This record gives sequence, structure tokens and C-alpha cells, in this order.
Amino acid sequence: MTDAPATPYLAVDLDVLSRNLENTARWARARGLRLRPHAKTHKSPEIARRQIESGAVGLTVATLAEGEIFSRAGATDLFVAYPVWAAGERGARLRALAQGVALRVGVDSAEGAQHLGIALAGTSASVMVEVDSGMRRTGVAPGEVLEVARAADRAGVRVAGVFTFPGHGYAPGGAAQAAADEATALAKAADILRGNGFDDLELGGGSTPTLAHSDATVLTEVRPGVSVFNDAQQVELGTCGWEDVALTAVGTVVSRGDGRFVLDAGGKVLGADRPGWATGAGRVPAMPDARVVLLSEHHAVVELPAGETLPELGDRVAVAPNHVCAAANLAREYVVTMGGRVTRWPITAAGANT
Amino acid sequence: MTDAPATPYLAVDLDVLSRNLENTARWARARGLRLRPHAKTHKSPEIARRQIESGAVGLTVATLAEGEIFSRAGATDLFVAYPVWAAGERGARLRALAQGVALRVGVDSAEGAQHLGIALAGTSASVMVEVDSGMRRTGVAPGEVLEVARAADRAGVRVAGVFTFPGHGYAPGGAAQAAADEATALAKAADILRGNGFDDLELGGGSTPTLAHSDATVLTEVRPGVSVFNDAQQVELGTCGWEDVALTAVGTVVSRGDGRFVLDAGGKVLGADRPGWATGAGRVPAMPDARVVLLSEHHAVVELPAGETLPELGDRVAVAPNHVCAAANLAREYVVTMGGRVTRWPITAAGANT
Repeated sequence: MTDAPATPYLAVDLDVLSRNLENTARWARARGLRLRPHAKTHKSPEIARRQIESGAVGLTVATLAEGEIFSRAGATDLFVAYPVWAAGERGARLRALAQGVALRVGVDSAEGAQHLGIALAGTSASVMVEVDSGMRRTGVAPGEVLEVARAADRAGVRVAGVFTFPGHGYAPGGAAQAAADEATALAKAADILRGNGFDDLELGGGSTPTLAHSDATVLTEVRPGVSVFNDAQQVELGTCGWEDVALTAVGTVVSRGDGRFVLDAGGKVLGADRPGWATGAGRVPAMPDARVVLLSEHHAVVELPAGETLPELGDRVAVAPNHVCAAANLAREYVVTMGGRVTRWPITAAGANT
Repeated sequence: MTDAPATPYLAVDLDVLSRNLENTARWARARGLRLRPHAKTHKSPEIARRQIESGAVGLTVATLAEGEIFSRAGATDLFVAYPVWAAGERGARLRALAQGVALRVGVDSAEGAQHLGIALAGTSASVMVEVDSGMRRTGVAPGEVLEVARAADRAGVRVAGVFTFPGHGYAPGGAAQAAADEATALAKAADILRGNGFDDLELGGGSTPTLAHSDATVLTEVRPGVSVFNDAQQVELGTCGWEDVALTAVGTVVSRGDGRFVLDAGGKVLGADRPGWATGAGRVPAMPDARVVLLSEHHAVVELPAGETLPELGDRVAVAPNHVCAAANLAREYVVTMGGRVTRWPITAAGANT
């Protein structure tokens, strides 16, 4: 018996990870875009450190708790890309964070700006007004950006810029249009702000599928998350190839027969994200024709085309999750392979939702 | 400012939980069925203790790691309802577990039985042969049960019975048929085994949606999981009402407008399970007409019918997850309300997948 990790576990190929880091950094550098990768994807101080070393200007986080963890781990420049409701205890936590790092916080309402003004008074923190570019999640319409910015101004907190998440680009063939929407929305919002005395604005966008289509004549900063690892969704969207997938969940074949086999890596490992256009609940990079047809909490049922050879009971099979951010959040550590060596990195910010 | 927990968090109503525990226990007792609730749902030693106190004969777990945790927490009778591949280090762990508790382990292949025989030699542990009753996940066809049972017998491990998971009952109107399939499959498998010298068999079934339809003339044991909490799926399947939902994820309204509001309880809190028949990605019990139309990692976008009043920014809103097992696994503790008092129970087995 070897000392291979017990399955299921998350395996990270450091060569691929490093190449992904460099590729994204080089891409942004070539276009004069500031790179602020989204740390919600990996939740790992070790990976964050490598992102900064490869040229990122800082990190994006989704929650205050993630910001606190990355700050403790040494991050000095953070953007909480979320309309943080900074009333009460959360305001006190945000203030403490702002006293330790260069901080930007998202806002999409005048009321939210008022609370941020109180929480951040006397700190150097600033806000970024969130604009909806077509996803219909958070963010105001570009034409409504001034009301929020003025509320922030009145509340005494500096407006650093505008940002959007072109999440409607997560659809086959949808990335180019979503990136165009992103640029249009940011340009319109920024024009309004500039026409009303707000200057020196950051224009932040950029998701992994839309990244290659980003309009560098409009945007000043991008914050891709998934591109550090990539996943089955990105391959199926055409954003990357299998050779770019740095993270897989490794499972053991526990059952087999009738053109199918079952792995012990289920939804509690892979996450249950399954957009309508996905071929299944993940993919097996080594078996491109295999389909993950059913996912329970502890079972991934994988179907092979007629005639293909099933793996044996006890074999280990690597599965690329559909959405790597969800899978990373479910684990506690990465098993990182560097050539023949194996090390483990804690997923320090897993579950840091508050 | 109160000391209310930071959102998002999982709230458990102890009155509802206690009633659910009692109802399930009473139901099983009245039918002469042994109750072995599935602890993968709650992952909490405190809840497991209450299940045993209310009459459960033992616990079901999905993974060896869960078994280890519940054994350390005082459980004495465990069934790992999974075809555990007990080679190598996992075999050693299983053996150690079998030395501390009364243990049953699932098996669905002759090869699996051989490994279990080696791992469990000299212990009192036994195996339960898994039968497929229509879900097409793990388990052999009822007619093939003898090969697996004989392999276990040859490997020196006692065959305690047969079990199945009628998971195809997770569909509107599907529960009664799935429960009938469950009884048919278990009866056929048991008949074959009894005709070949295997006696004193346990016949284990029972999922939350099929439970009320269980055939107590065939089954001897049931192992519902979700029924301890219930969730949006069970309400939408008609298994229970909103008054039976003991767990919700509490989020804060961070954005609103245009007939929609956004909560900070997203897929990293609620889980991303969304079967095709669900109305959305969870439900808001206090707003029966609301629909969770979009779920991102940290956003739940909730739509209200025209004319209904949106909650205010900063309001707290409770969401019932679609699948409570996934939500519980994502958190680290329950915030438990007992009348006016609040306490916290750790979700000790969260992430215990190996």
C-alpha cells in the first residue's frame, strides 16, 4: 500500500497552476490592465501569494470573512467585490479590516453607501459602485450610478470607480456579447460620474469566460477567479482546454457494470452546479467521451459509450468539477503535485461566508 | 446592535427538530420498523444523540470518516450504507472502527466483499448487500445478490441483510412507486438469499420522500436522513409542510429593486442542488410566492410577484435550502433556537468525505 491520500481529495497540478497564473498575468500586462484575481476561487493564501508575485496588484474577495483571512495571511490590497451591508457588527469588522489593508468595497445603493460611510470614516478605504451589465444580480443600471456615488460622497467615503460582473457570459457563445455589455455599462457609468466631478476612476470587470474579450480601451482592471484552476464548465464553454485544468477531484471506483462506473467523489466534493448547457455534473479529462450522468452526495455515476473499457474496481479516476469555486470551498486542503513531490496547502478560507 | 449571528448562518428551530425526531420515531415504532436515521444529513453528534434517545437503534453514515467521527462522539451501532472499497489504508481504518462499534458495511461486488473480508476478519462486523431498486446508482440487481453474498461468506464476513436506496422517489408523484420498487427489490433479494442458507436478514430501505409509503410487511429497517430537518424539496414533493422545516439559512438583504431582492446566502451556503422539477434554488417559507430565481456563490436572487412588498435593505430573510444535506455540509455550526434561548452545535462531520 502506498501513502496516497484517501479518496476523495482535490489534486492540484502545480505546473498547470503556475502556467495559468503566468498566462493570465501576461495577458493583463500586455493590455495594460491591472489584474486583481478573485481569491474566492482558491481560498488559499499560498496561491494568493503566487498571484501577487506573478504581477497581480491585489486580491478580490467576495466576503468580509475572506478579506479578514487574506489580510491575516499577509495581503495588503483587497477589494470586496460585493455590496457589503455594513450595519452593526459587520461595520465594525469592516473598519478593522480597513485599518490593516488598502481596501475597496462594493456598493449598489444609497443606503448601503451611508452605512459604509459610517463604518469607514477616518480610514483610507474607498467604494466601487456596482453596475449591472446584464446578469440581473446585484448592481444598479449604469444610468443610476450617480445617486449611489453621491450618497457615498455625502457619507464621506471616496468613490474609487465602478465595477460589474458579466456573469451572463457563462453560456455557450455568450462571452463576447457579455464582454461588450460589460464595456458599455462601465463606460456609460464612468462617463456619468466623470461628468459630475468624480475623477481618477477604476473600471473593473472581467470573469474567466469573458476575459479574452475584455475591452482594454474601457476597462482598467480585471478580476478573473476560475482561470487559476479552470474547470469542466470552462472547457465546455471553450475558454480553455483540458491541458489547462489544474484541479481535479480524485475518486475511487466503488461500483461498476453495464457501461457505467461509480466514483466516491459526489456532490459533497464536486459541488452540484450543473447549468442546463453542461453535458453532465463534471467531466473526466482522461475519458473525454465519458459523461457524469448522476451525482449524489457521495456518488458520481459515470457513463461510457458502448465498447469503451470501464476502469476496474479500486482504480482512481480524476474528475474536473463543473465549477471549481464550489469544489474548492467544500474541501479543507489541496494535494499539490510538483513533479514527483507532493505537498498540501490548506484551503484557509473555505466556508468563510460571513 | 444586537449580538445576532453574522449572516449567512444556518438556523435550527429546536421545537420543530424535536417534533420531527419524535414523529419519525413514532411512525417507525408503530410499524415495527427499526429506525436507523442517516447522520450524513445533520453531521451533528448532538442531533445523533437525540435520535438515539428518541428510539433509533443506531445511525447510518455515508463514509468511513463520518463513522469515525460519530464513533468518537459515542455512537455504538453504525451502518456505512455505501459500497466501501476496503483496500489498503481504508481497510485498516475500517477494521479499527469495527473494533469500537457494532458495524455493518455496504457491499455490491464480489471483489468488494473480498477486501471487506480481509479488513474485518476477527471482528463482529457484517455486510449488507446493496440492491438497486430503480435508481441506477450503486447496488446489484436483486437477481444477482447471491454472488455477492457468497463472496462475503467465502471471505469470512457475515451477511446481515440487504439494503437499497429508492432515490428515484425524488420526483413529483414518484414516491409511492419507488417505495413499491424498494419492497419488491428487497423481497426478491432476500428470498434468493434465504433459499440459499442466509437467514436472519435485515431488509433496509427508506428515504424521506418514500418513507410514508414503506412496506412494513417487507422492510425491517428504515434510514431516512432529511426528515430530521426537512427542506424545500420535501415541501415541493409534498412530503411535509413548511411548519415541518427545522433548518433555514438566514441571509441579509444586500440589494433590492425591480420586484427582486438579493440575499447574502448563496450556493456556498444553500448548496446548488436544483432538480428540474424544483421551482427555484430554495424557498422562502415566510414568502410562499417568492421564487429563488438565481443562485450564485454569495447571492440568492429572490423574485416576488408584482404588487408584493419587498423586504428592506438590511432585513434578515430565512431561506429553506433545496437539499438540506448539502447545506449542512457547507456550514460549521448550527445556530439553534430553543424558545428564546440560542445555542450553537458544531457540525462535526462537515466535509468528512473519505
